[in-house]
Amino acid sequence: MSKDGFLYHVAIAVKDIKKAEDIYSKLLGLEIVHREDVVNYGVKTSMLSPKSGEGSAVELIEPLDDNSPISEFMKKRGEGVHHICFLVEDIESSLKALKDKGVRLIDEHPRPGSYNSKVAFIHPKSMNGVLVELAEKNKD
Amino acid sequence: MSKDGFLYHVAIAVKDIKKAEDIYSKLLGLEIVHREDVVNYGVKTSMLSPKSGEGSAVELIEPLDDNSPISEFMKKRGEGVHHICFLVEDIESSLKALKDKGVRLIDEHPRPGSYNSKVAFIHPKSMNGVLVELAEKNKD
Repeated sequence: MSKDGFLYHVAIAVKDIKKAEDIYSKLLGLEIVHREDVVNYGVKTSMLSPKSGEGSAVELIEPLDDNSPISEFMKKRGEGVHHICFLVEDIESSLKALKDKGVRLIDEHPRPGSYNSKVAFIHPKSMNGVLVELAEKNKD
Repeated sequence: MSKDGFLYHVAIAVKDIKKAEDIYSKLLGLEIVHREDVVNYGVKTSMLSPKSGEGSAVELIEPLDDNSPISEFMKKRGEGVHHICFLVEDIESSLKALKDKGVRLIDEHPRPGSYNSKVAFIHPKSMNGVLVELAEKNKD
């Protein structure tokens, strides 16, 4: 069955990832499953999943420095949901199909994401104000 | 296995639910699985799931009228992610545990949600700026 449309994670911009990990793990019972600095997006990330291992993850993101786009986001909006990410089987063909439909893309071609995935963002103007990330998982 | 912490849906406040259904179904390949007016929250809702049936849903929410809290939200922030919802097995005990930990609750007791669920909201001040809903599914 295609993974297309599976909600992979909800990303939350936070000022202090350690404190946020405590909040989301202790209050909601989520488990930290992965930590990674994604340098090309200027963020430190932490993935938290339910203990059952099923379903979508919460991705906490903290800016690596003041030049990070996440710093800019928080200056304007404060902490909160930054983007939501859906899995796709083939990101190049998904991006082409979206472009053909006139969707405004931030990335016309994928960039490297966490877990060696390939990711690209759709502009919130095309998605009811939501910054949507598409991710193709590394198949190795 | 406990359902605690399963991300049930991401709710997106929209001005025109029909147009938004088109966007999320045609661009992301999601399927409309449920439509319901939740009068006590002043919203028209539409749930969209991936074709595999697995994972979290997108819940589109449109205000029923100008008095809806969602109208207020959109006046301030525009369209976008309004809240994220996690399943819990026993909402009364979850709320009590959160209260005992000093978490700021919007609802100290559950209210009726869609699908005959019981739902309650945690204040964004306690959740890094994210409005978090807890939902206990109807067991009938």
